[in-house]
Amino acid sequence: MNKPRTAIAPTREENYAEWYQQVIRAADLAENSAVRGCMVIKPWGYALWENMQRVLDDMFKATGHQNAYFPLFIPLSFMQKEAAHVDGFAKECAVVTHHRLEAGPDGKLVPAGELDEPLIVRPTSETIIGDAFSRWVQSYRDLPLLINQWANVVRWEMRTRMFLRTTEFLWQEGHTAHATREDAIAETMRMLDVYATFVEEWMAVPVIKGEKTAGERFPGADNTYCIEAMMQDRKALQAGTSHFLGQNFAKASEIQFLDQNGTRQYAWTTSWGVSTRLIGSLIMTHSDDDGLVLPPKIAPAQIVIVPIYRSDDERPRVIEYCQRVAQELRAQRYADRPVSVIVDERDERGGEKVWQWIKKGVPVRLEIGPRDMEKDSLFVGRRDKGHKDKQSIARGEFVANVAATLQSIQDSLFARARQFREQHLQRIDTKEEFYRFFTAPPAPENAPTPIHGGFALTHFSGDVDLERRIKDDLGVTVRCIPLEKSEAGTCPFTGKPSAQRVVWAKAY
Amino acid sequence: MNKPRTAIAPTREENYAEWYQQVIRAADLAENSAVRGCMVIKPWGYALWENMQRVLDDMFKATGHQNAYFPLFIPLSFMQKEAAHVDGFAKECAVVTHHRLEAGPDGKLVPAGELDEPLIVRPTSETIIGDAFSRWVQSYRDLPLLINQWANVVRWEMRTRMFLRTTEFLWQEGHTAHATREDAIAETMRMLDVYATFVEEWMAVPVIKGEKTAGERFPGADNTYCIEAMMQDRKALQAGTSHFLGQNFAKASEIQFLDQNGTRQYAWTTSWGVSTRLIGSLIMTHSDDDGLVLPPKIAPAQIVIVPIYRSDDERPRVIEYCQRVAQELRAQRYADRPVSVIVDERDERGGEKVWQWIKKGVPVRLEIGPRDMEKDSLFVGRRDKGHKDKQSIARGEFVANVAATLQSIQDSLFARARQFREQHLQRIDTKEEFYRFFTAPPAPENAPTPIHGGFALTHFSGDVDLERRIKDDLGVTVRCIPLEKSEAGTCPFTGKPSAQRVVWAKAY
Repeated sequence: MNKPRTAIAPTREENYAEWYQQVIRAADLAENSAVRGCMVIKPWGYALWENMQRVLDDMFKATGHQNAYFPLFIPLSFMQKEAAHVDGFAKECAVVTHHRLEAGPDGKLVPAGELDEPLIVRPTSETIIGDAFSRWVQSYRDLPLLINQWANVVRWEMRTRMFLRTTEFLWQEGHTAHATREDAIAETMRMLDVYATFVEEWMAVPVIKGEKTAGERFPGADNTYCIEAMMQDRKALQAGTSHFLGQNFAKASEIQFLDQNGTRQYAWTTSWGVSTRLIGSLIMTHSDDDGLVLPPKIAPAQIVIVPIYRSDDERPRVIEYCQRVAQELRAQRYADRPVSVIVDERDERGGEKVWQWIKKGVPVRLEIGPRDMEKDSLFVGRRDKGHKDKQSIARGEFVANVAATLQSIQDSLFARARQFREQHLQRIDTKEEFYRFFTAPPAPENAPTPIHGGFALTHFSGDVDLERRIKDDLGVTVRCIPLEKSEAGTCPFTGKPSAQRVVWAKAY
Repeated sequence: MNKPRTAIAPTREENYAEWYQQVIRAADLAENSAVRGCMVIKPWGYALWENMQRVLDDMFKATGHQNAYFPLFIPLSFMQKEAAHVDGFAKECAVVTHHRLEAGPDGKLVPAGELDEPLIVRPTSETIIGDAFSRWVQSYRDLPLLINQWANVVRWEMRTRMFLRTTEFLWQEGHTAHATREDAIAETMRMLDVYATFVEEWMAVPVIKGEKTAGERFPGADNTYCIEAMMQDRKALQAGTSHFLGQNFAKASEIQFLDQNGTRQYAWTTSWGVSTRLIGSLIMTHSDDDGLVLPPKIAPAQIVIVPIYRSDDERPRVIEYCQRVAQELRAQRYADRPVSVIVDERDERGGEKVWQWIKKGVPVRLEIGPRDMEKDSLFVGRRDKGHKDKQSIARGEFVANVAATLQSIQDSLFARARQFREQHLQRIDTKEEFYRFFTAPPAPENAPTPIHGGFALTHFSGDVDLERRIKDDLGVTVRCIPLEKSEAGTCPFTGKPSAQRVVWAKAY
């Protein structure tokens, strides 16, 4: 059997969608379960999520938020309090209708104990949290109320894909209430900034901050803001959203307070969330044809040491040496934590182990054998470089500079992703060019994945029907109206004036 | 209006069950929600849970476990794979039968999109995790497999009480697979020890480690081990369980591996869990008639500083001084973390604020006013002592000794709880004495809560029918067969020989 050219087959170019699944499998991040559309997040994937949670949670607390926990189930009547909201979620709700099982006529267990009112497994918690807020908020002194919840949610999606779109997923949902419209808008933008900072600085994924058009708004929101990232197939992925809910949910849930003049007022609310989908964006931004590539700041392990020995005699002293190097590295700090190091002592072939860690995306691999020990040096492989690009570095030098090395990998991943996005982001001013940009060359069977242009920055007059027509024609939508405004211009589709360019793309 | 004698009405003596609810309300830990049997965990209660999670999670990782996440939903057919298991949970399952909502004949939304197979909202995850393990375990090299999950679970309880028994609750569930019976038993006992260490050393709640009798076993387990604590009404509360599952679930889920001889074998599995119920045990162990009392090691805040000033002129410099003291305290460490301090700057009466923090259970209160500032001293109140028992301590001395002070509170809470348990734990050798011990004096209307004896250490021949009869007579059950064995003796109910004394008690 010939050795494959790359660790992942197919490559990105050959079949991007299948490559994505294979990267997840090779890194052992997650797998599909027996429950339709629900995945199992395996230890390596969950450790990644835990690191992301820790950083985000610290950022939420630093901006004054407190965590709390609200019921998994939402009474149907609550969902119906906000008309646009229930319309948005009715088609994809898991509904609990019974509260026990009993033996049916044929002896098989069947649902029994029908509930008076069906319960919805939360797809999002605005209505159930709104109910609590209506009790918690009485006076202007109770505001702002700044709450976050880490939870699982369920949306019955028809077509699922691990991390990107699953029936159940893990997320955090922030819910806040404020005395004024201005305060709530400021909160909405503050949390969008928190998300952008996290995704860019920790995940090394560049994003564009912007507002959604009416058609893409959260059901029940006045304004939805988002961060959009470009994947390696040039499609957009929405990495996080922050919603200004106006007084819609306050009115639906009766969140009222007495202001300083003793007048009863409705509160202004926001909600904002990121989910395990972020892991999907991470995978598709950095990974290559050898598998997962992890940014050091959130990698479950930053460094793996693989002992290289040719006999059982050599083994103990090589491993002991590796453990000593690991201790030295763990005494160093990076991104406010001790450097995290795994020594892979498993009794398997060294080359095999190295490949496993490449596929798992560990930022730095150290291979250490008797010759390296003699020279007091380490054989260093960086995951952001090709797997053949390894170099021997003096032990003391490597240890002393480890934080700088990790930061250099973090920076190079971000720079590479930003460069990729800049290459495939184009200002387009005519309808013809726009259609050409988004039309992939016809793909013969078994040909490489067809690739379209990427992100188009194009003027748009804001017409909802036009947006729908372009979506029908090309599968392309307005991903966002960037917060960073362009010059005004003319919509190439209608000839009408346009206040600014918007980002058009195919999207996950 | 007369000032009440205590912050909580009724007192423990007057009405223990109602006192418990009022402690939760006064401390702002949680509240009932609009969803039957589901509570909202409020920020102060959730911060407590987060601290408990952090310590437990570190302990699990230190013993080699990794976190993962499995689906919320379990197909009905999975639940049925283990007969005892499904019998144990069938009566209290939330069942999802539909996956969307649509407008019914009268325009109201009704469940639609019936599922081919109903899904159970997980009451526990042995079967769904077993399904994953059957894929993950192929060879003896894959064992032991040591997994933990932090999750929400649902059991449709008919009578609920916040933290102690709720329809939805938060927990962790460990699930492990081993090559041998001995390894699995060792794991079961190791995790029981982890729980006992956590509950005693961090929560300051003394426990008895023991095994459950057959009637109280986890559905599907060969052996169930537990830790049992005594509440202040002398009833027992099961604070954690660890199950040796034999090969029952391995056979149900086909968890098989090739051993070193190439023979296919069933794995041996365990599971173990603690839940938000621990918060209930914490409340009922330490709290008093002034409200919650928190052990310093897991309190959301260890110290609160209440600035005392009589005019708006005094305010800024008092607060500034308080913030300086807070910084000094935060530079100290206790239980491997910086000391956690809140400065309560809210513009309310000082005395009012002090009472709020008493009811919230903060271990140490510092009241600081202009006179204390002049004397360079602090007015210190310890929550483990009466609210009038305050003393003035030089600032430098208090700061230098703060870790010792916190440890002294931690120790005093544990000692007090253990003394209480010893006082109400009795060796009983006759049936008459046993019945007297568990029979509360008849309670006239509006009289204090009737109190029975507590824990009886009594010989028992192990007869299941006898155990049921005693339960029917007295509401008393065998809480556990202690791991610390007593002398052998005679069962006072049957005259048969008994290998050791067991713990009998009324239970939550």
